[in-house]
Amino acid sequence: MEVLKTEHAGFCFGVKRAIDIVLKEREKTKENIYTIGPIIHNSQMVQALEEKGITPVDDIFRIKDGIVVFRTHGIKKEEEEYIKKQNLKVIDATCPFVKRVRKHAIYLEKNGYTVVIVGDKNHPEVKSVLSYLHNGGIVLQKSVPVPAKKIGIVSQTTLDADTFLDVVNGLVGGAEEIRVYNTICESTQVRQKEAARLSSMVDIMLVVGGMNSSNTTKLYNIAKKEQPNTYHIETDEDLKPEWFSGMQRVGITGGASTPGFIMDLVERRVKYI
Amino acid sequence: MEVLKTEHAGFCFGVKRAIDIVLKEREKTKENIYTIGPIIHNSQMVQALEEKGITPVDDIFRIKDGIVVFRTHGIKKEEEEYIKKQNLKVIDATCPFVKRVRKHAIYLEKNGYTVVIVGDKNHPEVKSVLSYLHNGGIVLQKSVPVPAKKIGIVSQTTLDADTFLDVVNGLVGGAEEIRVYNTICESTQVRQKEAARLSSMVDIMLVVGGMNSSNTTKLYNIAKKEQPNTYHIETDEDLKPEWFSGMQRVGITGGASTPGFIMDLVERRVKYI
Repeated sequence: MEVLKTEHAGFCFGVKRAIDIVLKEREKTKENIYTIGPIIHNSQMVQALEEKGITPVDDIFRIKDGIVVFRTHGIKKEEEEYIKKQNLKVIDATCPFVKRVRKHAIYLEKNGYTVVIVGDKNHPEVKSVLSYLHNGGIVLQKSVPVPAKKIGIVSQTTLDADTFLDVVNGLVGGAEEIRVYNTICESTQVRQKEAARLSSMVDIMLVVGGMNSSNTTKLYNIAKKEQPNTYHIETDEDLKPEWFSGMQRVGITGGASTPGFIMDLVERRVKYI
Repeated sequence: MEVLKTEHAGFCFGVKRAIDIVLKEREKTKENIYTIGPIIHNSQMVQALEEKGITPVDDIFRIKDGIVVFRTHGIKKEEEEYIKKQNLKVIDATCPFVKRVRKHAIYLEKNGYTVVIVGDKNHPEVKSVLSYLHNGGIVLQKSVPVPAKKIGIVSQTTLDADTFLDVVNGLVGGAEEIRVYNTICESTQVRQKEAARLSSMVDIMLVVGGMNSSNTTKLYNIAKKEQPNTYHIETDEDLKPEWFSGMQRVGITGGASTPGFIMDLVERRVKYI
């Protein structure tokens, strides 16, 4: 079986940075370390960190001691305020590109724009951005008319370019002024392009990463369009030999939160199928 | 022959205003009145005004006396400066919506945006706006990549919405920030929608207005898409009886610079074909 890989796959800048931050903190202290929600959307990595005493908690209002880590996707405003009041030690591992989305959204609201966030309203990144807006924002994943004169648009960092363009295009006709910050992060854009390209060159395509990972799911959807034999797997254990019957070239890519060791395991096992 | 007309046709707000301004001035004074270029893009109307001593001139640098009228499409910056220096009396008949385009373009340039004007680089409105920009602007009628981080977009007031959307859509993917002022004027938008609707309901469609009129030509193109039997005429004299053979319903619309009396003449003659 011939294996081809995208040039970029696995941890992106923001994920690498967050993991480095918590591991360095782990070396320095014996205190409990908590992340608010999983620090990244990869359960294998989160489990490995948990074994080192870095524990994800959903209900931050129960945290009374230790060190609190803001995860890559950002934190909600009310959570940030609670933690400040409790005087807990905080380490901010929010991805800088996610902070950029928040910064632009706040700026747009302050300047009188109705804020539209193109993305998934249930994703923690979007929830975090929304929580910092006084009037709330409108979260869209497809083109819907928004009755406002001044519309400011940002995107979830891990969005696909087509969805973003589709929503922007639908809004441009209706408003007097539209201000658009294309906040899809560079890393997402590069990986999406590479995934589309590689998918069109192989007989079977594997997209490796968390089932709860937004950017991995987008990569899967993009790859699937080019190559119907595309599979989203979390680890090498999800591989099924029957997928590969009669296939000659397999493509592998991974999400921004997929650890390198999992990518390697998948590659090694595929070579011996 | 059944005749159907669009609700809106003929002089728009800006054209009506400009004609009123020069006619009032004509009543007040016996001095020469000059318009810089044709005051509106309708040769029948321009000729009627010329008979009243309101003369269009192309080379304004020859004007040494009299009253100078800035036409609906605006004036170039260097022309404005010359006229001020010559201390000539000025009457500004520039359409307020055209001024809005200029205002937004200047504001965008001042704030560090690369300015894109969606429109026709040879149209006097676009030339006027361009002349007020220090770094110039990029004039586009179709989607072309613009290598800039911050792009500010305005449109010629008489543009069609599809072209505007197409250009904006092409630019959104490439820049970090896009700021869009949809400066297609309300009147243009309403007329274009009505022209498209009426064209789909008739056997033959007539679009009345100057051959040099941008908004009339756009109406013609929009109508032609819905109804291949569409004709752009300047006056009732352009009508050809053979167009109407076997037809039952004729639709009539007119540009923003088409005088009402010409629309009436066309309607009357069509009824008796």
